[in-house]
Formats: sequence, C-alpha cells, structure tokens
Amino acid sequence: MDVAAVVETGADALLLDLDGTLTIGEHAVCGADRLLASYADRFAVITNNSSDLPETIAQRLAECGLSVPASRIFTAGMAMIEALAERQAPTLALVSSVMRARALERGVLLVDKHAHTVAIGRDAAFDYPMLTNAANEVRYGARLVASNLDNNHPGSSGTIVPETGALVAAILAAAGSQDVEVIGKPSVRLAELALDALGCSAARSVVVGDNPATDGALAASIGSAFVPVMVRTVDVRSASRRARVR
Amino acid sequence: MDVAAVVETGADALLLDLDGTLTIGEHAVCGADRLLASYADRFAVITNNSSDLPETIAQRLAECGLSVPASRIFTAGMAMIEALAERQAPTLALVSSVMRARALERGVLLVDKHAHTVAIGRDAAFDYPMLTNAANEVRYGARLVASNLDNNHPGSSGTIVPETGALVAAILAAAGSQDVEVIGKPSVRLAELALDALGCSAARSVVVGDNPATDGALAASIGSAFVPVMVRTVDVRSASRRARVR
Repeated sequence: MDVAAVVETGADALLLDLDGTLTIGEHAVCGADRLLASYADRFAVITNNSSDLPETIAQRLAECGLSVPASRIFTAGMAMIEALAERQAPTLALVSSVMRARALERGVLLVDKHAHTVAIGRDAAFDYPMLTNAANEVRYGARLVASNLDNNHPGSSGTIVPETGALVAAILAAAGSQDVEVIGKPSVRLAELALDALGCSAARSVVVGDNPATDGALAASIGSAFVPVMVRTVDVRSASRRARVR
Repeated sequence: MDVAAVVETGADALLLDLDGTLTIGEHAVCGADRLLASYADRFAVITNNSSDLPETIAQRLAECGLSVPASRIFTAGMAMIEALAERQAPTLALVSSVMRARALERGVLLVDKHAHTVAIGRDAAFDYPMLTNAANEVRYGARLVASNLDNNHPGSSGTIVPETGALVAAILAAAGSQDVEVIGKPSVRLAELALDALGCSAARSVVVGDNPATDGALAASIGSAFVPVMVRTVDVRSASRRARVR
C-alpha cells in the first residue's frame, strides 16, 4: 500500500476498505499499520462484510497488529439489519448466525414464509433449500435486499471467498427477477454513517480501497477523493505474531 | 396441451420436453396420455433434467399414468456423464448422488481439487462450501461444464424449483468468469441421440416444449418444427391414482 499517496491528499479523514485493502485473509497489508498510526482517530473502516460483528472484525484486526475500535467499523451487514429494523416488514433473512442473532436483538421480524422482504448477506450456511425458499418468496413478490453485491473477496493463499453477490445471482436467476436493493458500497449509507461519526465532510475525506466498482464508485457518489490500492504484499509479521499467541 | 396441433404437423416422430410439458410437479399434463398413445413408439423425451436416472423418470411418469420406456428418455445429466467419460479429464462433479454413482460406474475420474473440469447439474445438496471449491477451481483454470442452463422448472402447487442455471450463475459470479459449456438444450446433443434411436430425421420430427429459449431454439438449430405448449391444466387423475397406490 502506498501510504505516502494517501497522506499527500491532505485529507482530514480516511474511509478505509477492509478486505484487500487493510488485510488479505488473516494478514495485514504492508503499510496498513503506519497508515492507521498516521491518522490516529481520523479514520473509519467501511466494509461490505456482512457476516461478522464489528467487535469480531476489531479483534481480527488486532490479531493482525492493527488497532481499530469496533465503533469505527461500519459494515454492510449491520447497516442492513438497521434498515430492516426500521422497516418492520416480515423478513426472510439469509444471513450468518451472528447476524441473525443481532437482527433478533434489534427487533427484526424474522419469518420463513410469506416474507415482505428477503434479506441476504454472506451466509456460509447457504444451501439449495435456502435458495429454493428465497427464490419462491421473491417470485411471490418479496423485495430482495442484499447487504452488498460483491461477488468474492480475497481469502488466504490466493483463494477467493464467494461473497453475497454470488448468492444473489443464484436467487435472482432462480426467481427470474433482476430487482435487488443494495445496502453496502457503492451505496452511500456506510460512508454517511462513518462521516457523521468522524464529524468530517465528504469533500475533506478520502476513500481508500481496492475495488473501483464499489470503493471508487462510492467516492464519486459522495464527492470524496479516491486512492485506489493494488496490494501485492502482506505483512507477514502479523501472521507470525498470531502464530506465537496460539 | 393442444394435442391436435401436434398431430396436425404430420411429423414422423416427436421430441418431447418433460417438466412443464408432459408433467408439472407430480401431475401429468392434460392430454399428455393421449399424445403418447397417438405416437406409440415414435416419440422420445429429451429433458434438461440432470439429477435423476432415466429409470427413475420412467417410474415417475408411470405413477402419473404416462408410459415411457427408460430407453426413450434422454437427459442432460446422462449426456454430461457420457461426455465426461469420453474426455477422461480429472473432474470435480457437483451432481446428485445418483448421478455421481453413475459417473463412477462410467469411469469418470472424480477429484475434489486440481480439476481440469468442473461439472455441474442440479444438485439439491449444493451449498456454500461447494460453491467456494468450484469457484476456486474455475478461477485456477478448470473448464466449467453445465448439464443445462435452465434457471428453474415448475414444481408442485405453483412453486418453482431452482435449476442448474441458478447454481451456475453463483459459480460464474464468484469465479469472475463467463465461460461455460452447456450439454443440454438448446445444445443439439440430446435431440441427436433421440433421433438416432428413433431412426428419424430432424426434418420429419417436431419438438414439443414449454420453453422457447431451450426447446424452441433447439428446434431451430436442428431444423425441426416446434410446437410450443403453454400448460395451465394438469390431469388430477394421475395424482389421485398415485394417492391410492400409496
């Protein structure tokens, strides 16, 4: 990561992507620790992650040697749950078990049938019966809401991890529909939440990310600068540190 | 089904679609029994079904009151297995358990990793770990072969059943690829196998089906006439007959 390129923008605050930008799999990206240190309390992480709680992500970052308070991590999954809680519509939720628990805590009305909304995040328990049920609910008029439309994110050892977009593709294909509401990037919600928390205007912020289709498009939408990162090296210290702890 | 419209073509032989044409869920379509009786031994069923053996389909048709020998049923799943057996490439097969067993019988070299081919049919056991594995294999150069690209087929009580195409959509999205080889309709293989067995030329045959994108396109490719069916009624006698048997 080119830390100097970010610092040279002179931005008051950073909106940082997570997977592929700060971390790759369980490794910190080289320079990520210096970037965070340079910006102290003037950054937030905005991520299309839809399966983990901010607390879990903060813990994982700490294990990589990156210190980010959970309150500064804005995820597409959490934003989707807040949106569902506001709407109070009967919802078929295809989300990870921790996100399902959080949805129940927030008062989201979860149903298996006759849903007004089908909400989907990256759910590693996704399977054919869930696809069948979701496709039929959408076919019968439920609104499909996706935490994000990323198709994959980088995993460990050069692998890819299927993302919510790939599951959405299956549901839309089976249902014969093309309508989906997207909560995460490039939608502007995460950035607005983060800028509010940081007390910074979009014009004085910079978005740093590895995905032009989400991070770049978001920056253009809100009028922030965009610094693309193309990460080829990870900080192996973070992995060895983690290995020693275990 | 408009039996008269088919008979009026004067065709020597019929190539009949299955789901949505002869049956809907576990019901025979009204008129299907009369059509089969009219054509005695001059018809074949060509179906994008990829999860069942011809014997199983013949049994299911018999339970609906439709008599079709297994030897006259040509499925996309069986055609895919024959193609895989010929090629002798290490294959990651995402198919139903009966089709997997048939693939092993036919000598297909099945692997979990380092596949040259990823073969997919409608597999009701499809899940996220399988999606992850398949997407990574495709990402690393395996050729994706699909039994068919139908996105769904009609199930019981007005529901839809997700088909292979919906699973392919998820794999292609996750892998970031658009390349897929299709074995079933509208590819001409099933029709060629069936016409050979019937000893009939394409020009003297007629394709009967409910899907213009598969059945209609196939007919155009091989130069057969096409009679589209739009089925709204099923033969409830078949259901009650079945209920009495159990």
